[in-house]
Amino acid sequence: MTIQLAEKLDSAFEEMVEIRRYLHMHPEVSFKETKTAGYIQDFYRDLGIPFQANVGGNGVVARVKGALPGKTVALRADFDALPIQDEKDVPYKSTVDGVMHACGHDGHTATLLILARTINELKDELAGEYVFIHQHAEEYAPGGAKPMIEAGCLDGVDAIFGTHLWSLFPLGSIEYKSGPIMAAADRFEITIQGQGGHGANPHQAKDAIVVASQLVVNLQQLVARRVDPTQSAVLSVGSFVAENAFNIIADTVKLAGTVRTFDADVRDLMERELARVIEGTCLAADCTYTVEYTRGYPPVINHKEETEFLATVAGDIPGVELVKESELLMIGEDFGYYMEEIPGTFFFTGAMPEGEVYPHHSPKFDFDERAMLTAAKTLGMAAIQYQTK
Amino acid sequence: MTIQLAEKLDSAFEEMVEIRRYLHMHPEVSFKETKTAGYIQDFYRDLGIPFQANVGGNGVVARVKGALPGKTVALRADFDALPIQDEKDVPYKSTVDGVMHACGHDGHTATLLILARTINELKDELAGEYVFIHQHAEEYAPGGAKPMIEAGCLDGVDAIFGTHLWSLFPLGSIEYKSGPIMAAADRFEITIQGQGGHGANPHQAKDAIVVASQLVVNLQQLVARRVDPTQSAVLSVGSFVAENAFNIIADTVKLAGTVRTFDADVRDLMERELARVIEGTCLAADCTYTVEYTRGYPPVINHKEETEFLATVAGDIPGVELVKESELLMIGEDFGYYMEEIPGTFFFTGAMPEGEVYPHHSPKFDFDERAMLTAAKTLGMAAIQYQTK
Amino acid sequence: MTIQLAEKLDSAFEEMVEIRRYLHMHPEVSFKETKTAGYIQDFYRDLGIPFQANVGGNGVVARVKGALPGKTVALRADFDALPIQDEKDVPYKSTVDGVMHACGHDGHTATLLILARTINELKDELAGEYVFIHQHAEEYAPGGAKPMIEAGCLDGVDAIFGTHLWSLFPLGSIEYKSGPIMAAADRFEITIQGQGGHGANPHQAKDAIVVASQLVVNLQQLVARRVDPTQSAVLSVGSFVAENAFNIIADTVKLAGTVRTFDADVRDLMERELARVIEGTCLAADCTYTVEYTRGYPPVINHKEETEFLATVAGDIPGVELVKESELLMIGEDFGYYMEEIPGTFFFTGAMPEGEVYPHHSPKFDFDERAMLTAAKTLGMAAIQYQTK
Amino acid sequence: MTIQLAEKLDSAFEEMVEIRRYLHMHPEVSFKETKTAGYIQDFYRDLGIPFQANVGGNGVVARVKGALPGKTVALRADFDALPIQDEKDVPYKSTVDGVMHACGHDGHTATLLILARTINELKDELAGEYVFIHQHAEEYAPGGAKPMIEAGCLDGVDAIFGTHLWSLFPLGSIEYKSGPIMAAADRFEITIQGQGGHGANPHQAKDAIVVASQLVVNLQQLVARRVDPTQSAVLSVGSFVAENAFNIIADTVKLAGTVRTFDADVRDLMERELARVIEGTCLAADCTYTVEYTRGYPPVINHKEETEFLATVAGDIPGVELVKESELLMIGEDFGYYMEEIPGTFFFTGAMPEGEVYPHHSPKFDFDERAMLTAAKTLGMAAIQYQTK
Repeated sequence: MTIQLAEKLDSAFEEMVEIRRYLHMHPEVSFKETKTAGYIQDFYRDLGIPFQANVGGNGVVARVKGALPGKTVALRADFDALPIQDEKDVPYKSTVDGVMHACGHDGHTATLLILARTINELKDELAGEYVFIHQHAEEYAPGGAKPMIEAGCLDGVDAIFGTHLWSLFPLGSIEYKSGPIMAAADRFEITIQGQGGHGANPHQAKDAIVVASQLVVNLQQLVARRVDPTQSAVLSVGSFVAENAFNIIADTVKLAGTVRTFDADVRDLMERELARVIEGTCLAADCTYTVEYTRGYPPVINHKEETEFLATVAGDIPGVELVKESELLMIGEDFGYYMEEIPGTFFFTGAMPEGEVYPHHSPKFDFDERAMLTAAKTLGMAAIQYQTK
Repeated sequence: MTIQLAEKLDSAFEEMVEIRRYLHMHPEVSFKETKTAGYIQDFYRDLGIPFQANVGGNGVVARVKGALPGKTVALRADFDALPIQDEKDVPYKSTVDGVMHACGHDGHTATLLILARTINELKDELAGEYVFIHQHAEEYAPGGAKPMIEAGCLDGVDAIFGTHLWSLFPLGSIEYKSGPIMAAADRFEITIQGQGGHGANPHQAKDAIVVASQLVVNLQQLVARRVDPTQSAVLSVGSFVAENAFNIIADTVKLAGTVRTFDADVRDLMERELARVIEGTCLAADCTYTVEYTRGYPPVINHKEETEFLATVAGDIPGVELVKESELLMIGEDFGYYMEEIPGTFFFTGAMPEGEVYPHHSPKFDFDERAMLTAAKTLGMAAIQYQTK
Repeated sequence: MTIQLAEKLDSAFEEMVEIRRYLHMHPEVSFKETKTAGYIQDFYRDLGIPFQANVGGNGVVARVKGALPGKTVALRADFDALPIQDEKDVPYKSTVDGVMHACGHDGHTATLLILARTINELKDELAGEYVFIHQHAEEYAPGGAKPMIEAGCLDGVDAIFGTHLWSLFPLGSIEYKSGPIMAAADRFEITIQGQGGHGANPHQAKDAIVVASQLVVNLQQLVARRVDPTQSAVLSVGSFVAENAFNIIADTVKLAGTVRTFDADVRDLMERELARVIEGTCLAADCTYTVEYTRGYPPVINHKEETEFLATVAGDIPGVELVKESELLMIGEDFGYYMEEIPGTFFFTGAMPEGEVYPHHSPKFDFDERAMLTAAKTLGMAAIQYQTK
Repeated sequence: MTIQLAEKLDSAFEEMVEIRRYLHMHPEVSFKETKTAGYIQDFYRDLGIPFQANVGGNGVVARVKGALPGKTVALRADFDALPIQDEKDVPYKSTVDGVMHACGHDGHTATLLILARTINELKDELAGEYVFIHQHAEEYAPGGAKPMIEAGCLDGVDAIFGTHLWSLFPLGSIEYKSGPIMAAADRFEITIQGQGGHGANPHQAKDAIVVASQLVVNLQQLVARRVDPTQSAVLSVGSFVAENAFNIIADTVKLAGTVRTFDADVRDLMERELARVIEGTCLAADCTYTVEYTRGYPPVINHKEETEFLATVAGDIPGVELVKESELLMIGEDFGYYMEEIPGTFFFTGAMPEGEVYPHHSPKFDFDERAMLTAAKTLGMAAIQYQTK
């Protein structure tokens, strides 16, 4: 079966690339990815594979039943893109201004679609049931995983596997980790309310840009001074918007950012100190503010048994040359919600491109498309072999 | 003649308000004010007053010749609006999202249109020629004054008068000043180029928002530490834009702002030190940048003789209760260009509204519309009496 | 008389230099200048000129009566030094570690001593009475002027003149100004109380150095953003002390600084906003603080009549090549207290050295000693001619 | 033997406290601890125990030979104090202004002296040789350990044990850790050179306090933005000195601080980025600077075998209720040098006082003196049992 699956996937590689590139050219941001969902539905419809659309939002769940009885195993791929301007110079560059697949979810989707078709082709020889979870909105909390679970996508599922193509790990590598692997990811939104006026008369206004700038500078001290240095924490302000004429004093600034932690106490500390720094900074400048702190995804805590199983499976996949334990990643993933419900594991598939390498979420991000084959084979073999584990 | 002019203007007050409110509801930003220009043209066309359109851009210049020989006197009103969101709660609130007459140019235009019609009605009894300069793009350097002058709007003109309705001065007041009255107004645009990345991994990116925030904070020291405290200078950053998803590290920040000075050495110092602070701040963060510093309008230097003449005229205008010398204003005005060419003066007409008062360029800015009458009478009488000065 | 006074002073120039250099080598800080006071007393005692010691502190007041009746005119020189390390490389460099005559008060004293001796020598031909006020503690509020006035140093005095040798104005120049000439000078002292700890464990401490550093940076915005740019204001933090081992987190920081203004409203604003910025900055960092704001000397407001008289006198002094109106100076002077009591004026005597020029209070400050002659002649002639004004 | 040692130590507890309190009242800073060294020498001299003075500086090494052959085991205690003002209100408060045993080295010394005496009393029944290393200058790199090793204090020594009384761990606890336990501790000293002047004239000076304050604020970003958040790093500025009159602009600021890391790459990054931030910050302000970065103690890397042995020994010590693995500590210790030479381990002895608990290096630091007994018993039993390990 291993050989058949591998061969079928190998021969579908060009199609996989085609799908990925089509999606790459037509990215949609989180919660608005309706055309991408339509594309996925069309794919299954054309093949006659039963699926459910609009699961917990734009989610799509397809199911393939093997001829023999067995366990139900879910495989998950996310399909939303990011509000980033594509700065790559490639033929499959994003055609949508300001939106880009800068995290590889296009590759995840292409991988899972071709894998689903392949498993469907082999279903007469397979035991168990295979659930293909195409999840929307991974990039933007509260995310798609939670509503898809609430809508029943895990009903009857025994275990779940998921992977992330990773541009910073070499092609041919699989990285796994039992226990915590990815961080809790919180979001905050701050509005600084000053008092607008003419740029020539600062004394008649309250300059919201100066106050917000001080705030950004002051916030650096949370990680540098208030968190135990043997613990991990990140605070990043990703968005700072006060778009005005040059000769105006800004009335309002809108900030948005993220906090990443692994430890519950550190998470509490960051939320509390963030509030304190905002309060003091605005008081010093006689400005007002609003702050909304939204706890996002929980950390991803992989299950021990499934993680060790996956590591063993990965060692036998053709093309996999390195199976190693992953470090902690500060990044969040709503895969953490699945891990709270049923056994499973989330792992990384090395996808480092030749030439320049850019991190995920960079405007020049890209990955080696051959990694999709590695991911498809590993996910596919894990699902099939899980029947006899 | 004084009485006739005043009576005619008084009886046209409601029309003046109507025009002003129409313009207020339909604001257009600098250099894009084509519909406003069309409105002005229609007004003159309907009255059969000859005018020239597209003078140096969207400028409109109408001319009325008195029956008797005399001097040629120009009166100037600007008609562009600002990229500010109207936050007032009034029936004549701006209907255009993000654009607002937050500086009173709608009032200037209504004032000058009705005044032109009135002078046209009185032309058989008047000496000299009257030039009504409707100037576009006062709010955004390089401004409309310069190209309108280059297109000939001052040709044959002996003197020019202009006023600004001023919400911070009481209704019934006229403020004048010989010599410098308004500041040199320069513009700068800065792009901070960091390196984008995922918000969870600051060490793999260069956070342009943090760097730009430090820059804004550091720039406060130019005025506080490097300019002679007995001199005047202002530096305001009016725009700070890095609009991204919350979980991204910003690749780029765009800043825009203004520098105001009266003295040539201080102007040089500000430009030079701005460059130094940017260079050092970016070096500290290993980021790159571009900076464009555009010298804007010259200071407005009123002519002594015309200023004293105007002050005398103003004292006799019905409704004017206070004629006083103005303080220096940090604000720029491209009226400075006219003053470099021919004699004239620029003065302020008090327009403080009842109730809450907001400064110019505030999202809640408004003025007492009765000030338009004061302005029309003062400008009109100055022009007529200048014939016999 | 003019010629006699000038000749006598010219021939005493070397002595003047000797006295100045002796004082320069033996500086004493404000309120501790007892040896300098003793030196002055010895000088008068040796000459048999009557004097009063310990006037309002370390002050010394000598009196010389002319043979003829007339007005009583006071001349004032201050004699305290500064807590600055002398960094000049000259034979008369300060011999006291960390203390230096960096403002020229040594020169003022030498000037007044020799002038007093000269007037004493001429007294048989002079009308009126001459009061030589040697004032202690000009550099440190509450200063010596106020207690000396309270102790009676102005009793019976009709007018007072004083000058400052000024290293930034050319030798041979006198600068005068009627009305305000020098600023109100306030002092503040701030203690930031964090929580000490080991430098390795910031999360167990509250880093007072970081908080105080933020405070210094934040305070730049008072002048840059909150004061009307057409007004003058200065805020300088002159002292920042947290002297610890390198591997400690500072428990406490002590700051001291000065605020300079001319206008009463701006003075109030600065005091109020200083308090606000401290409160907010410490709140953001969960630290406590104390702040003491001490209003210092009033502005120096010269009397019109005496100022114009002085300017006329100065024009006739041999060696004076330039008599011009001074600009506003941000510096404080407790000469302001004398101006609140009796007529008089305070002026500047140009003393720019050849070679490198350093501002007052610089560790390399020095002045051209020939300026002492100009000062002595101008003060002396002003006092003598005031009798017949 | 265990019982004898414990009983003898118990009965000497009051003496131990006396010694500790005497030392506490007479602290001396690193490299100047000559009286303390003299006190230690007197102690051994009085007992007739042979010792070597001035070992690698102020170090003292005493040796006691057991009657039977065996291994040579060293025990180490440090004896220097810190430049901190004692703020405790206790009878044994420091009598030296600005100097304090704020880290417990007084306790270490009392512990080792009484333990040495006790072992000397038992020597007829003991095997092996016991080396008591009283080390000077642990608090200040380059420290005393290195020169003492170079002077031969480890010659012939088979293993070494050391402990730190720890106010944050409960009385009765021992914390050990194999491999890295304490951080690399580097020191930096920065001088910011501005240009002094009068506080009233910032434009004629370059304000070194503002520049240094910005630097402190900017340095927060090294840990917050440039170090991998899954790694540990600390940067603390412990000293900031610009002591001037309030009305001066500071010519110079002197900063000193520490950098703590475990990883060689992170250590390099911190040193490199520190240099970059200083360069950029000074460039922005047109100031110059000097920076000296001194690599301090290496991390303390405990030997596995000796650490496990110590943990076993500790479990049997009367009064020890908790033996647990320690977390990583950001603090440096020159015990790391011993670990580079011979086998051994460094552990923590819980010493949390009743009532308020303050961290090490706090001006209110104190510890429960009963912990000295626990430390003495653990070190003593480890040394004795190491003979038969």
